[in-house]
Amino acid sequence: MTDTVLADLLARVRRLEDERDIARLIASYGPLVDAGEAHAASMLWADDGVYDVEGWLMTSRDDVRAMVESRPHRGLIGRGCVHFHSPAVIHVDGDEATAVCETLLVVRRNGPAGDTGQAEYSVQRAGATDFTLRRDADSAHGWVISRRTTRLLDGSPEAAALLSRAVTD
Amino acid sequence: MTDTVLADLLARVRRLEDERDIARLIASYGPLVDAGEAHAASMLWADDGVYDVEGWLMTSRDDVRAMVESRPHRGLIGRGCVHFHSPAVIHVDGDEATAVCETLLVVRRNGPAGDTGQAEYSVQRAGATDFTLRRDADSAHGWVISRRTTRLLDGSPEAAALLSRAVTD
Amino acid sequence: MTDTVLADLLARVRRLEDERDIARLIASYGPLVDAGEAHAASMLWADDGVYDVEGWLMTSRDDVRAMVESRPHRGLIGRGCVHFHSPAVIHVDGDEATAVCETLLVVRRNGPAGDTGQAEYSVQRAGATDFTLRRDADSAHGWVISRRTTRLLDGSPEAAALLSRAVTD
Repeated sequence: MTDTVLADLLARVRRLEDERDIARLIASYGPLVDAGEAHAASMLWADDGVYDVEGWLMTSRDDVRAMVESRPHRGLIGRGCVHFHSPAVIHVDGDEATAVCETLLVVRRNGPAGDTGQAEYSVQRAGATDFTLRRDADSAHGWVISRRTTRLLDGSPEAAALLSRAVTD
Repeated sequence: MTDTVLADLLARVRRLEDERDIARLIASYGPLVDAGEAHAASMLWADDGVYDVEGWLMTSRDDVRAMVESRPHRGLIGRGCVHFHSPAVIHVDGDEATAVCETLLVVRRNGPAGDTGQAEYSVQRAGATDFTLRRDADSAHGWVISRRTTRLLDGSPEAAALLSRAVTD
Repeated sequence: MTDTVLADLLARVRRLEDERDIARLIASYGPLVDAGEAHAASMLWADDGVYDVEGWLMTSRDDVRAMVESRPHRGLIGRGCVHFHSPAVIHVDGDEATAVCETLLVVRRNGPAGDTGQAEYSVQRAGATDFTLRRDADSAHGWVISRRTTRLLDGSPEAAALLSRAVTD
């Protein structure tokens, strides 16, 4: 009896740890890219990982690093930006996992302050994001992103299709 | 000794799984309603579940489905919207649970772009949200919403009272 | 064998519970300060806890309570506000822990509605936040904040340095 119960319990705890690891990995994306931590951000991906964001297709860690170090991205940081991610809907299946969340890009405004007399930020983008991840014992996170796809939420069926992956059956 | 330790451990793991299930259920609300997944969104509720949002009182899964399929909601999706929920404060008590979070409705703006030359989104609503849930073995989520109450954060005591349920004593 | 396995399992479950407790503590900050729950908000801190936010240095629970009860903070609540926190990157090390997240302060606008004809909210501040916490068996949360530092995300190296603490090595 005890052995079976223990084996079952171990599997359940492992599952909770996997979900925790993946939630933490996703939660660290925003802080890393907003801090300009290009190397650490790139290490969230597999070496052959893909980041497909509205027509900007990155297909390696080097590509992700180059994006964080790019002039447009450095411009966002210099101005003040937050890449905000909602809590993700995570599903683990053995050594593979998926996660769906929504994202906001919030950027400090130039120009006159609003009616509060304070500097304000604007929400420049809202996106649907879908992750595929795989277990990787060599990663500090225990998991790496195989593919991340993000699409602007502008009424397009493509963005809705990404969000539909949150359906649990 | 071992049996008692194991029983205690099983209860603690069950609790963590319950909280995980409820966090995932709440995290899926935004993606589902922003994708127009009316059926899947309605299945987050109990068959006799209540969704009370600023005077729109839904009292069944059919009512929730009808809201997601309504012309105003389809208009938000067509334009581009995000129903963003903060991480929830979840308390499980046996087969019942409560959760409190804050919510933002972010909608794509029409009209001229802001000073960045990009399309922008506006935050149309900010809300206080309180959930009551119950365990349901027939649900794909393990839990269903018995009642969700959302009130606009506009200085009213009603919204503050919902948030006060996050107090832990 | 079993004793070692059990001890290991107990430690892993304890870790998951610690992370859950800290995530819940952080998730409750927004609801508590937006509801004006000054006492409950102050109890998230250690008695000698520090809250260092853009030049406003609080060094006790009394200071935190006074901030929530201050005229400017009551003004935000009366108008309608949300202190939104992203899911945190939490690391527990025995009886100490750290957490990093990003924050938005969203406030109801006065004046004319936007192009949607609805009242709107503005994002007044976006911040980088770093927590240091310690275990406290006397706290309802199991943990208390020893220090919270928040800095405006305006391109300053100080804010970026806080976010860089999310790097996992």
